[in-house]
Amino acid sequence: MLNSRKPLALKGDILYTPSAERFVSVTGGYLVCDGGLIEGIFEELPERYSNIEVIDFGYKLIIPGLVDLHVHAPQFTYRGLGMDLELLPWLETYAYKEEAKYADTVYAEAAYNVFCAALKNSATTHAAVFATLHSGATRILMDLLEGTGLHTFVGKVNMDRNSPANLTQTTQESISDTEFWLGAVRGKYERTRPILSPRFAPTCTDALMEALGKAALCCGVPVQSHMSENRAEIAWVRELHPDCRYYGDVFDKYGLFGKGVPTIMAHCVYPEERELELIRDNGVFVAHCPQSNINISSGIAPVREMLDRGIRVGLGSDVAGGSSLSIFRGMSDAIQVSKLYSILVDKTKKPLTLPEAFYMATKGGGSFWGKVGSFEPGFDMSAVVLDDEVLNGAYDLTLEQRLERIVYLSPDGHIAAKYAGGNQIF
Amino acid sequence: MLNSRKPLALKGDILYTPSAERFVSVTGGYLVCDGGLIEGIFEELPERYSNIEVIDFGYKLIIPGLVDLHVHAPQFTYRGLGMDLELLPWLETYAYKEEAKYADTVYAEAAYNVFCAALKNSATTHAAVFATLHSGATRILMDLLEGTGLHTFVGKVNMDRNSPANLTQTTQESISDTEFWLGAVRGKYERTRPILSPRFAPTCTDALMEALGKAALCCGVPVQSHMSENRAEIAWVRELHPDCRYYGDVFDKYGLFGKGVPTIMAHCVYPEERELELIRDNGVFVAHCPQSNINISSGIAPVREMLDRGIRVGLGSDVAGGSSLSIFRGMSDAIQVSKLYSILVDKTKKPLTLPEAFYMATKGGGSFWGKVGSFEPGFDMSAVVLDDEVLNGAYDLTLEQRLERIVYLSPDGHIAAKYAGGNQIF
Repeated sequence: MLNSRKPLALKGDILYTPSAERFVSVTGGYLVCDGGLIEGIFEELPERYSNIEVIDFGYKLIIPGLVDLHVHAPQFTYRGLGMDLELLPWLETYAYKEEAKYADTVYAEAAYNVFCAALKNSATTHAAVFATLHSGATRILMDLLEGTGLHTFVGKVNMDRNSPANLTQTTQESISDTEFWLGAVRGKYERTRPILSPRFAPTCTDALMEALGKAALCCGVPVQSHMSENRAEIAWVRELHPDCRYYGDVFDKYGLFGKGVPTIMAHCVYPEERELELIRDNGVFVAHCPQSNINISSGIAPVREMLDRGIRVGLGSDVAGGSSLSIFRGMSDAIQVSKLYSILVDKTKKPLTLPEAFYMATKGGGSFWGKVGSFEPGFDMSAVVLDDEVLNGAYDLTLEQRLERIVYLSPDGHIAAKYAGGNQIF
Repeated sequence: MLNSRKPLALKGDILYTPSAERFVSVTGGYLVCDGGLIEGIFEELPERYSNIEVIDFGYKLIIPGLVDLHVHAPQFTYRGLGMDLELLPWLETYAYKEEAKYADTVYAEAAYNVFCAALKNSATTHAAVFATLHSGATRILMDLLEGTGLHTFVGKVNMDRNSPANLTQTTQESISDTEFWLGAVRGKYERTRPILSPRFAPTCTDALMEALGKAALCCGVPVQSHMSENRAEIAWVRELHPDCRYYGDVFDKYGLFGKGVPTIMAHCVYPEERELELIRDNGVFVAHCPQSNINISSGIAPVREMLDRGIRVGLGSDVAGGSSLSIFRGMSDAIQVSKLYSILVDKTKKPLTLPEAFYMATKGGGSFWGKVGSFEPGFDMSAVVLDDEVLNGAYDLTLEQRLERIVYLSPDGHIAAKYAGGNQIF
């Protein structure tokens, strides 16, 4: 891995979204960075940078690295299988069976190596990752992810009820294993950080949720979980927590729902009105996972509604509910389902535009890390260089049109170079 | 191109759907053909074939060639662009502008060469293709398609109203040009046949429709068009044809709707009850184009309803309303939108299964050519050989699971060999 934290400029056709409303594009521009941070975008290289190294990518497209706000590393092995089931039976038939195998660290290392190679070779530079409940395998995953140069949050999963016997810890085991794991991994890596990961409300007892809430608060560890993915799941949570007004309340009750504890909630397909308000007021990030929500027959999340309310939304591949690790594919999926939402559910909610989807895939999700996902000054220097010449032939396309073609035609290819946090990944 | 119309066996992992209910799979089986037709599938090679050539594809997957029942060749150039518009503005902003360029046969030849190469390299062996209204360019396309070895129906498009000036013929021009074109191409090719292609009801006057209906009947030429794609379009057709009870009636009135005239109608997103009855009774084929129906915000066609009624349904890529030429992608799109239809529109309509989607993509659409799209004895020997080893690694998957992974993970790749009508394409 080339360390490029010294001053550097990438030259090429630059495209990014400082806001969701529109693209900023500079043809043949210079992306200047220093110490791993963006200095600025320039049409001509300013005199003061005349001595820095310039890497000339010609007519290649340079965009911020993409952000996957929700992905299950152990499920990568069986993506694209078993797409005939809804969430709860799918978990039991596929997800849990596979995840149980990660008790074996030899298996885990082999499987996680494949996942890490795929994530490294994708356009994703930042990801929030679920592992399994096995702290040993999770530490292996964190070691491997650190080696990729990507920036990740990784969670040892918590499950102490309503799970198969070989994938359940006692409440005390789950708590102490989490504490032990946190102790071992916090501060260990440069780019890989732990995130508390109660799987979802049905698999975590109140006692476990309470302990995790305390850990989040006292250790400043962020949180990720799943919420309101599927109607059967929501009904189940209502039975399990008759005292809670809505799903998000279960997390909020234990301090696992924003308010100073950075939190990602995946899905939110069927949020209630006041739940949306709490998501916004508490600064919770929603990981929108459109492909997964189709594949396991959940539905379509009301993303336009979320954006209109000022809720922070990023995109998640949700492998293996989603089959594809590509966040480019996530963008076209997000746009496509928003069209169907507009036609079939609520005509007043306009479909997502390409800049909106791109914003969610970059700065929207990237903000979970801070200044990530844009090329504004002071942002993390994470970038993907795309060689899309083969797609466009003799056509004279705008940079936005070239991006649109990649998103729709070829979401897995064309990555010529990739940088994260100022370092060259390849 | 290798002519393999002599007796031949392909050995490999064979998978096909004689009916939509289930796959037939034979691991390490023999697909025997003679004279371009299937003799049968055998677990062991029968004694009577002991002297024929056997091509051993090892563990590769052998499936029938896929069928694209609806694709616009001239739109291939700008697929994946302009996905923010609905049908009618999209036609005016993109489709018509591009199609007008095909008046220039030099442009047409260059662009059609690219389309033909892509279709040849895909898993599609049979396609029903719209060209433009230019008979010269359409003949070039037919020459090129014949050269690919694929089996196609190709249509010079008819438009004599409600179209841009540079893409409108007078009624008489449209009729005489069609007659001239038919005279030039009928019987000229081994695999490439003409199909009458009134673009859609709004662009064809009654006089033109009447003349096309007569041509279809007297010359035995099949018909393809678009129907009930979008609500605005349907309302427009109602205004234009106040005498017709529903959209299909416009075609039926002029003998362009089945009943001995083999007919493909693309889309049918919003069919009326009695229209569905007429489609079934007249033996009209529906080309289901799920990706296009999302991209240009049409909706979701009621495919389960069609199948339940015994309507013949195939899949169409509908490039460039659809961005992808892959009918594998068409299968996952069809399954995915059927899930959303079930959740958002009508809970009683179960989502499509993988064998149902595969059947539509093979025998369902293939039946438009006759015995095409299955490996039953007497069927056309069209097959695709898939090298999917890289997808599966150490996993011990069934042949159906291997197909599922290709459909979801990698719809553009893995084609090791391809045969159409007994000839090897590559």
